[in-house]
Amino acid sequence: MNTFTVRAYGAESTTADLKEMNIERREATPNDVEIEILYCGVCHSDLHTARNDWGGTIYPAVPGHEIVGRITKVGSDVSKFKVGDLAGVGCIVDSCGTCESCKHDLEQYCLNGFTGTYNGKDKHLGGHTFGGYSQKVVVDSNHVLKVPENLDLAAVAPLLCAGITTWSPLKHWNVGPNSKVAVVGLGGLGHMAIKLAKGLGAEVTLFSRTPGKAEDAKQLGADHVVISTEQSEMDSVKGKFDVIIDTVPYVHDVNPYITTLNISGTLVIVGYLGGLEPILNTVPMIMGRKSVAGSVIGGIAETQEMLDFCGEHNIVSEIETIKMNEINEAYERMLKSDVKYRFVIDMQSL
Amino acid sequence: MNTFTVRAYGAESTTADLKEMNIERREATPNDVEIEILYCGVCHSDLHTARNDWGGTIYPAVPGHEIVGRITKVGSDVSKFKVGDLAGVGCIVDSCGTCESCKHDLEQYCLNGFTGTYNGKDKHLGGHTFGGYSQKVVVDSNHVLKVPENLDLAAVAPLLCAGITTWSPLKHWNVGPNSKVAVVGLGGLGHMAIKLAKGLGAEVTLFSRTPGKAEDAKQLGADHVVISTEQSEMDSVKGKFDVIIDTVPYVHDVNPYITTLNISGTLVIVGYLGGLEPILNTVPMIMGRKSVAGSVIGGIAETQEMLDFCGEHNIVSEIETIKMNEINEAYERMLKSDVKYRFVIDMQSL
Repeated sequence: MNTFTVRAYGAESTTADLKEMNIERREATPNDVEIEILYCGVCHSDLHTARNDWGGTIYPAVPGHEIVGRITKVGSDVSKFKVGDLAGVGCIVDSCGTCESCKHDLEQYCLNGFTGTYNGKDKHLGGHTFGGYSQKVVVDSNHVLKVPENLDLAAVAPLLCAGITTWSPLKHWNVGPNSKVAVVGLGGLGHMAIKLAKGLGAEVTLFSRTPGKAEDAKQLGADHVVISTEQSEMDSVKGKFDVIIDTVPYVHDVNPYITTLNISGTLVIVGYLGGLEPILNTVPMIMGRKSVAGSVIGGIAETQEMLDFCGEHNIVSEIETIKMNEINEAYERMLKSDVKYRFVIDMQSL
Repeated sequence: MNTFTVRAYGAESTTADLKEMNIERREATPNDVEIEILYCGVCHSDLHTARNDWGGTIYPAVPGHEIVGRITKVGSDVSKFKVGDLAGVGCIVDSCGTCESCKHDLEQYCLNGFTGTYNGKDKHLGGHTFGGYSQKVVVDSNHVLKVPENLDLAAVAPLLCAGITTWSPLKHWNVGPNSKVAVVGLGGLGHMAIKLAKGLGAEVTLFSRTPGKAEDAKQLGADHVVISTEQSEMDSVKGKFDVIIDTVPYVHDVNPYITTLNISGTLVIVGYLGGLEPILNTVPMIMGRKSVAGSVIGGIAETQEMLDFCGEHNIVSEIETIKMNEINEAYERMLKSDVKYRFVIDMQSL
């Protein structure tokens, strides 16, 4: 298969800083589009992958799965896009298309395993996939999103991961104008959960341990802020919420939040992979038909639905734009939660 | 308020055997019906209450909340029942009727606390309520069920608790002809879950630790039996089930069952109140949008729906009928799971 060389930014090993490197992209096949990347958001998963925090990273690792760009080539069988169109690529660049999940537009749960935008198994070139910290990317057109023309493109990029990760559970658990939604944690995911739940018409509450975040949360659209370390504030929202989107990325006690769920309510964990400690108490779950659930990103059709919704409602991420060579510093700041609320790389700087 | 005396069977203290005693019932008020009790099922909660296993038992304690009988009096405002009708009473004899739960036919989640059939706060006479181990009971007619005439009345009694406890989650989580349902544990609840899920048209699998239960489970309607201690059998049902009804009444590891849930599947705990140990792993929940939920009994309208369904589909509990004075022995056998699958007291024996 023919390839071409593009500049990229990646890690050569677990401990190495990211640096400029060359990678190969395939020439667009009949179903592909080639995209010049304009902006790429910086997700916690990028850092975890670059540093092999989860194991399984293959080097060199080129992160980036919040990609916005412009199409520079379309394959002969592609009718959905044309050269010059805006395009988005999220966490998924391929999936089997034949399993029950894929047949139901749930590529994120592809039973044969979707192909991650980076560190996935490259079906075309062999080896592993390289993400959006690069000049161009070539992607199967069925996994490429249309991007509304009216939005700030840099601020659209985080919608492709942080946005869809919170949108998907909001939609699956039927959030709408009469819903009471709470969001736990105000970071990249949390700030999008507030904006999207508010956009869907819900009454939105932020749970935070930090009183200083109240003003920011309200500017983002939160109707209320509850300081989760204050028992009296927690008591005041007992039995209130239909859906809680829990974005906290480390182990934490979810039991206090379960008491704030309404009858038949659901707490959805989107940020923390691991064991739930301290242990979950079934009593309030049984006595109130409450659920604890998990959810990961979203399917392609659902991502398109979210982007269209954001275009109509003028919803984008709050971002700080950086240059490509500032990425290592950005990772360090991200570890300290020193970002409001997402770094986005201006790829012209590569 | 006028009262009358009936014979009953109850416990005088935590350690006392149950024995015959007299209790007072109120004369039927305009909204009440008076029921001569024909059969009363024996639930684990009866034993836990008699022995104060959960704390909070007020003595004398007269258990019994799986009541089937015939109406002997109706209050002047009651139009739904007439003298001579069959009637059922489950776990709930009153609720506020005004909260959001009650307004939505979810009396089991009454936000002001429903009145339990026994050991509840008696709004009419003061003191506490007495259950179905007695000759008669007087109940607000809105909390009384119509019982199909075509069923074995003794075997109907357990539907009022074991039946509705499994019916409610099956319905809430949309079990129907295309569903794949698993049931964990084959006791009073588990055997009803199999029958009701099968009645709803689902493909039903029993998880059991005991190979000897396979034949029984199939006779009850299970399509498959999976021995949960055999890893190869567990692997064979990975990702299979839409809904799992977990009836196990003691602490146990639910993680192996979560891997057998399909994408977007739900495991519903109905039998165990307490901490979930070992800890729940969020990874399969997040990577498959899976939920862990709880559920308790069911509402009045839903209980009626279940009884009507059972009448149409000829579904009753599998029972062993006992005399009232055999109750203490029955409790001991129940503790050893030595019953297929529910004891029912023939109240004529009192």
